[in-house]
Amino acid sequence: MADKFLKIAYIGGGSRAWARKLMCDLAISEDITGEVRLYDIDKGAANDNRAIGNKISEMAEGGKKWNYVAVDDIDNALKGCDAVIISVMPGTLDEMASDVDVPMSYGIYQPVGDTVGAGGYLRAMRCVPMFRFFAAKIRENCPSAWVINYTNPMTICTRTLYEEFPDIKAFGCCHEVFGTQELLAAALKDVCGIEAESRDEIKVDVCGINHFTWITKAYYKDIDLFEVFEKFSDKYAGKGFCANGKKEAWLSNVFDCGNCIKFELFRRYGVIPAAGDRHLSEFMPQKWFLESPETALEKWKFALTPVSWRRQDLKERLQETKDILSGKKIVKLGKSGEEGVKQLKALFGSDGFVTNINMPNKGQMKGYPTGAIVETNGLFGLNGITPLLANPLPDEVNSLVLRHVYNQEAFIKAAFRKSIDKVFAVYVNDPQVASLDFSAAREMFDKMVANTEKYLKGYWF
Amino acid sequence: MADKFLKIAYIGGGSRAWARKLMCDLAISEDITGEVRLYDIDKGAANDNRAIGNKISEMAEGGKKWNYVAVDDIDNALKGCDAVIISVMPGTLDEMASDVDVPMSYGIYQPVGDTVGAGGYLRAMRCVPMFRFFAAKIRENCPSAWVINYTNPMTICTRTLYEEFPDIKAFGCCHEVFGTQELLAAALKDVCGIEAESRDEIKVDVCGINHFTWITKAYYKDIDLFEVFEKFSDKYAGKGFCANGKKEAWLSNVFDCGNCIKFELFRRYGVIPAAGDRHLSEFMPQKWFLESPETALEKWKFALTPVSWRRQDLKERLQETKDILSGKKIVKLGKSGEEGVKQLKALFGSDGFVTNINMPNKGQMKGYPTGAIVETNGLFGLNGITPLLANPLPDEVNSLVLRHVYNQEAFIKAAFRKSIDKVFAVYVNDPQVASLDFSAAREMFDKMVANTEKYLKGYWF
Amino acid sequence: MADKFLKIAYIGGGSRAWARKLMCDLAISEDITGEVRLYDIDKGAANDNRAIGNKISEMAEGGKKWNYVAVDDIDNALKGCDAVIISVMPGTLDEMASDVDVPMSYGIYQPVGDTVGAGGYLRAMRCVPMFRFFAAKIRENCPSAWVINYTNPMTICTRTLYEEFPDIKAFGCCHEVFGTQELLAAALKDVCGIEAESRDEIKVDVCGINHFTWITKAYYKDIDLFEVFEKFSDKYAGKGFCANGKKEAWLSNVFDCGNCIKFELFRRYGVIPAAGDRHLSEFMPQKWFLESPETALEKWKFALTPVSWRRQDLKERLQETKDILSGKKIVKLGKSGEEGVKQLKALFGSDGFVTNINMPNKGQMKGYPTGAIVETNGLFGLNGITPLLANPLPDEVNSLVLRHVYNQEAFIKAAFRKSIDKVFAVYVNDPQVASLDFSAAREMFDKMVANTEKYLKGYWF
Amino acid sequence: MADKFLKIAYIGGGSRAWARKLMCDLAISEDITGEVRLYDIDKGAANDNRAIGNKISEMAEGGKKWNYVAVDDIDNALKGCDAVIISVMPGTLDEMASDVDVPMSYGIYQPVGDTVGAGGYLRAMRCVPMFRFFAAKIRENCPSAWVINYTNPMTICTRTLYEEFPDIKAFGCCHEVFGTQELLAAALKDVCGIEAESRDEIKVDVCGINHFTWITKAYYKDIDLFEVFEKFSDKYAGKGFCANGKKEAWLSNVFDCGNCIKFELFRRYGVIPAAGDRHLSEFMPQKWFLESPETALEKWKFALTPVSWRRQDLKERLQETKDILSGKKIVKLGKSGEEGVKQLKALFGSDGFVTNINMPNKGQMKGYPTGAIVETNGLFGLNGITPLLANPLPDEVNSLVLRHVYNQEAFIKAAFRKSIDKVFAVYVNDPQVASLDFSAAREMFDKMVANTEKYLKGYWF
Repeated sequence: MADKFLKIAYIGGGSRAWARKLMCDLAISEDITGEVRLYDIDKGAANDNRAIGNKISEMAEGGKKWNYVAVDDIDNALKGCDAVIISVMPGTLDEMASDVDVPMSYGIYQPVGDTVGAGGYLRAMRCVPMFRFFAAKIRENCPSAWVINYTNPMTICTRTLYEEFPDIKAFGCCHEVFGTQELLAAALKDVCGIEAESRDEIKVDVCGINHFTWITKAYYKDIDLFEVFEKFSDKYAGKGFCANGKKEAWLSNVFDCGNCIKFELFRRYGVIPAAGDRHLSEFMPQKWFLESPETALEKWKFALTPVSWRRQDLKERLQETKDILSGKKIVKLGKSGEEGVKQLKALFGSDGFVTNINMPNKGQMKGYPTGAIVETNGLFGLNGITPLLANPLPDEVNSLVLRHVYNQEAFIKAAFRKSIDKVFAVYVNDPQVASLDFSAAREMFDKMVANTEKYLKGYWF
Repeated sequence: MADKFLKIAYIGGGSRAWARKLMCDLAISEDITGEVRLYDIDKGAANDNRAIGNKISEMAEGGKKWNYVAVDDIDNALKGCDAVIISVMPGTLDEMASDVDVPMSYGIYQPVGDTVGAGGYLRAMRCVPMFRFFAAKIRENCPSAWVINYTNPMTICTRTLYEEFPDIKAFGCCHEVFGTQELLAAALKDVCGIEAESRDEIKVDVCGINHFTWITKAYYKDIDLFEVFEKFSDKYAGKGFCANGKKEAWLSNVFDCGNCIKFELFRRYGVIPAAGDRHLSEFMPQKWFLESPETALEKWKFALTPVSWRRQDLKERLQETKDILSGKKIVKLGKSGEEGVKQLKALFGSDGFVTNINMPNKGQMKGYPTGAIVETNGLFGLNGITPLLANPLPDEVNSLVLRHVYNQEAFIKAAFRKSIDKVFAVYVNDPQVASLDFSAAREMFDKMVANTEKYLKGYWF
Repeated sequence: MADKFLKIAYIGGGSRAWARKLMCDLAISEDITGEVRLYDIDKGAANDNRAIGNKISEMAEGGKKWNYVAVDDIDNALKGCDAVIISVMPGTLDEMASDVDVPMSYGIYQPVGDTVGAGGYLRAMRCVPMFRFFAAKIRENCPSAWVINYTNPMTICTRTLYEEFPDIKAFGCCHEVFGTQELLAAALKDVCGIEAESRDEIKVDVCGINHFTWITKAYYKDIDLFEVFEKFSDKYAGKGFCANGKKEAWLSNVFDCGNCIKFELFRRYGVIPAAGDRHLSEFMPQKWFLESPETALEKWKFALTPVSWRRQDLKERLQETKDILSGKKIVKLGKSGEEGVKQLKALFGSDGFVTNINMPNKGQMKGYPTGAIVETNGLFGLNGITPLLANPLPDEVNSLVLRHVYNQEAFIKAAFRKSIDKVFAVYVNDPQVASLDFSAAREMFDKMVANTEKYLKGYWF
Repeated sequence: MADKFLKIAYIGGGSRAWARKLMCDLAISEDITGEVRLYDIDKGAANDNRAIGNKISEMAEGGKKWNYVAVDDIDNALKGCDAVIISVMPGTLDEMASDVDVPMSYGIYQPVGDTVGAGGYLRAMRCVPMFRFFAAKIRENCPSAWVINYTNPMTICTRTLYEEFPDIKAFGCCHEVFGTQELLAAALKDVCGIEAESRDEIKVDVCGINHFTWITKAYYKDIDLFEVFEKFSDKYAGKGFCANGKKEAWLSNVFDCGNCIKFELFRRYGVIPAAGDRHLSEFMPQKWFLESPETALEKWKFALTPVSWRRQDLKERLQETKDILSGKKIVKLGKSGEEGVKQLKALFGSDGFVTNINMPNKGQMKGYPTGAIVETNGLFGLNGITPLLANPLPDEVNSLVLRHVYNQEAFIKAAFRKSIDKVFAVYVNDPQVASLDFSAAREMFDKMVANTEKYLKGYWF
């Protein structure tokens, strides 16, 4: 059978690292070939990506299968596409600095600040106008294309796509669950001395919402990994364990953590949280894990990611781009570990498989509102993703998760009514923001709005 | 038609005031007559109530319709009864002191402390063994009797009855909604100059959970009271308004409040909370309304009820009992404003009517878990209460309410598994307790358990 | 308080008798006054009704409270209305003759032919274009008016209004349940010798779909009417009993019946069907009650209503109209027994009350599809009707009812896609039509479509 | 990794052919080994199976992995088992003759008579006492064993297991969907000239109830098989097509059919029924496909299976057993095409996979009652089967299917109350039985009960 020819629009992708992973996965993928249209408001970035994409594509054994083009106009990028990938930065690092630093000045510490909480909701306010625009353009140019969103806040962005264009075929992808599978593999090795060949062998039933997802069942062949994880968490609770094998990695790398939040919550609730501790911490009351940067690091074994770090990291990635373009650095072809290309292949006729996915609830999470974006397992097949029925979460965990689900639903309604006051009602409901009284919360909110006004004006006011 | 003869068992009732109201309502009720069997672990109290009950009964125009007897044995009290009223004190004021004072020493202020929060859950732990016992005894002695519960925590107590004996015909009654109807009547007068003849004319659609109930629609004849309440809350927000007409009553009476929480929440969410501010405050994050007793009083216009006040109040009520028994004080016959007797009459064949009621959710609150005790309107009729379908709450409010609903459901499961650790997982989830870190919370919990151990031993450990 | 002034549009009303009842009820109603705008495609009928309406209005004690005007243009009729009443004849008696007589030639006997079955679906096909038009005009001219529909097929007509204009405030009214309450009153008298003062005292819990509604609980004061009806149906099953007291009334009056279907179904299922036997019979397999006109009459004690009878009846009503206009006949002022005016009053601020009503399912019937029109009890109040949660029906009855509910939902989708073939798929699914094989059914369908083509062309083809 | 050692109880299995397939699949399965305990009320049959099982087991390449033992006592058979297989004959061919022949004398023709309809419900009445007994014994002896049921009526038998022992880990397996996958493979070849390598490559989304299951989506690699099937059914509707390639096979083999019912229903509803036409026909009104044996064969291209055929077939299978035991005939080792062993392997730690399965509805079929046994896709994994969320069926199809679902639920309630009258209410509701009037239906029912009394007495009366 001949390779399937796909037209893919890639919206954004300035983050470089991420785009490169996809380019590699495409270059070596079997069964599919095609064209990638790069659209970015930063035209230079799109052009760089075009050059690098084609470079990578040419490295593939068996020759170049993908042609990369930079497109100035979103309509031209989307027209007749089979698939759309959205991976944008809503604002710049300046906005992200406001999202993180203003709350910090009120004693609210966010290790990431891009999901829920003070920073998450401001970022969401910036995303809504963009994602309504994307959805409208997709409806106009390629209504039956599959749309993968990688942008955070994942839930709000994906939900906005559906609210604007209910028939959109969109889903959100996130690799946080993969990291937890790797932790389970490490536990299997640590407790039983058994080494799994790959993450895929660690089977997990997941449900919840993005970055606050939970594993209700896990196994490797005929071994129940909950029994393994119980021993493992008893061993490392309070001490920390880093899945990558590095000792106390959290002290030196802002992306690493000791998984102490996972151990704590598993021991309390009997289910395993399936995201990095940095993300998890932001969903719960401030006093639990984020009283101060010091307790976070010392007691719970994870660090905050300062925006200064992100600025430095960006600089390095920009340099790396230059080096690749100049030939000074060579991209090494290989699987990225991400699943986007595997998912696309399945949607267009290759082997189906089960993985975690963010989609509107149409029954996969009982007791959760219809239409809310939930993260559960789904079976990928030709032109469809079928959700698997999720196991029920313990009621104590529903108590933690549903407050966010309803807050997110309220946010979407507020956003489509363009009501700043209704957004504020959501904002104060957030368990982190709720550590302030109303007047402090309002002052903080107003500052954050003012700081990022450039991205809000014209839509919100 | 001859009066219907009813056998009513009254479990508890030591609180005196409450029992007296019922006695008056029974004495003057038409259509029904019968026997009231008083059962109390404090036999003296039951005996006093017997004497007072008969005294009141004899005062009725048209002669004595009810015979009161004190019964030592719960089986004898319940055997063959038509109705059972449960109004018990789970422990003494010493236990209540622990419920309120221990948390206070950790900076957690509870104006009441009997519903959710640190005090509420400890009280609930004491209630579960009692209510399992009551339910089992009812199943044994009078399985088809109607059971009215007045005891707090209302939700947990009623839920326990159903968990123990799923076919029980029980419901919980609370007058907090009545108080909000009176506030609406006051608003009608204040804003429109119209005086409602009675609370019954203020029609309200309510839903939520006991003490955290919400009015989604209210009217008086053809006047929409939401428009009225909007003007009213604009006028009194921040200043306070007391429904009984007394100026700044909250400064002198611990049971009064200025309704500033109701104004705040209504202005934020667009629905009217239907309980006293003292109760409402306990369901939300500490920083909102309970940062300190001073901010509560000064900013939000309500006071905490110290247990010392309750001790003094009890003393006065005991003296009053003596005075009534000795004839020094005469009870004045008249309607109490409570609805218990009206409800009983409807269940046994008198006119039906609609009022708010605590019952298991069987669909009246969509999106809420089946079986959880919710408070909505219900139509009373012969041998049945039919819930009315509740209007949906705003998502922001669901975010606030559902965290408690799932916490309460988790508590019940923990309680039937007798797991102290699972109760603690519920306890830390509470938005008030969540203002502490885990170790402080655990320490506080352990102290509270130790203080009230007498009522927990034999069931929980 | 001054009377409320209402503007009411009355669409249709040519049937005369029905309009007159409403005119009488309005004339003597307290609390409301106003204007009635009569719109009918038969302008003469509207004019006659205007004259009669004003005549009746003037007869009222205390003077004329309502002004009737005939309006040629539907926009003018609806503009700014507070309420709209729809009571139209979809076609003429010629179309009704086709609905009834064509199926009869295939051995399918329909006592009425206006609800489900061969005749019901053809009538529904004629109604859909009309009701889409009405809904669109209401959206345009008076989107917040209350709309009462009296037209059959009740379910399809009301459902069409909502499908076209989801925010419409419409409900369907039918007096079939009242007739069953009267039968229960007769049973009470027959079995217990007790005479109820009025139908209102017979309390019933109803649910199902229009003309196939079921009573799951019934009582009079403290008497359980199910126990009464059990004795009653044992006594009269097979023999027949006519609620109006006339012996074997079904032999002489096509609208009377012996209630033998009600007795049969109650004895089998334990719940009481709440519509006339003529309507009930059409929902079930042909062999049950409609094998032939003879078995219907002899065994089940009800007659078919021939269209010739309707023609004669119409002639008499037209003569009666002339006689009233000429003064030869005087209308007697008095309550009609219908509830439309009482409902309007409640919606505009008078006393609320509970009655049966056809509205979209939003949870009142668990297990039934959301949005389907179901008939249950509802509480009328200011500007709202709150459904009561229905008791579950026995599964055997759900098996009978749900096939129609899903058929009706399928019909609506077919109708909005204007697909004749999809309507045919619904048509053959009907338990009566299912007594034919596909080719006979298609032949019959095509004939019926051809006969009533005039009302279908332009919409369906 | 060493093979997993499993203890399997096999209840029944007298049908020989079926048991042999399993024996072959076990013999050649990798990863598992163990013991099979054969329990049959016909001890001779169990003994024969033991001998044959061991014979087959010894033929395996790599040696004997399974030991077969015949066990007289069900407790000994079940004690400590890992898995239980139930494949029993509820009665003998004499009872089956009554199930089929009595209705035939009333003009009701059942091609099979073992699922719904007159024969299906009588068979169900015989099954209930047996399956309650099995469930109780499993609870006692091996409560955490996996239980596969192969017995018809599949839905009722599996539902009975759960009603008796709600925590049972049971599911029902049926190969009818496989046959439809093969038909789709044949269509793919016929229309596109493409040959699928195996049935597994034909991916289908299925839902419904056993023998009345529907395919809502089907594909082969990137080919949408609905488009293929549309052309295919246009080509063969009315003519018939046999998946096994034999021309007009239905004329000579009672198990073959021309799939004309599938073509007819697909063209009407747009979804593909996924069972043999012989089964499908029994779920719909008599006039549709079963007016007479002649129209079934001539118009719809399928034959009835007379019990005389089954008697002859049984005789041949008994002879075959003898021949195998005597060595005259040699069983050929090879995959059976059934999935039981693959499922067991997955449940005990081998590769997971997705297939269709009969299990209680816990949300996989929205709008269907919770707990009813539905057939949908499920993902097999270690110690669990996770249902996939089913696509919604068209409302016209729900109208057909739900009447049976509610009838089956009503049957179960009747069966656990042991009420013959309630069963009769279910029986007359069946669309086939509904072609009789009540008295004929009752007469037929009573005859069938009398004929099979031996299997009903002691439980039902």
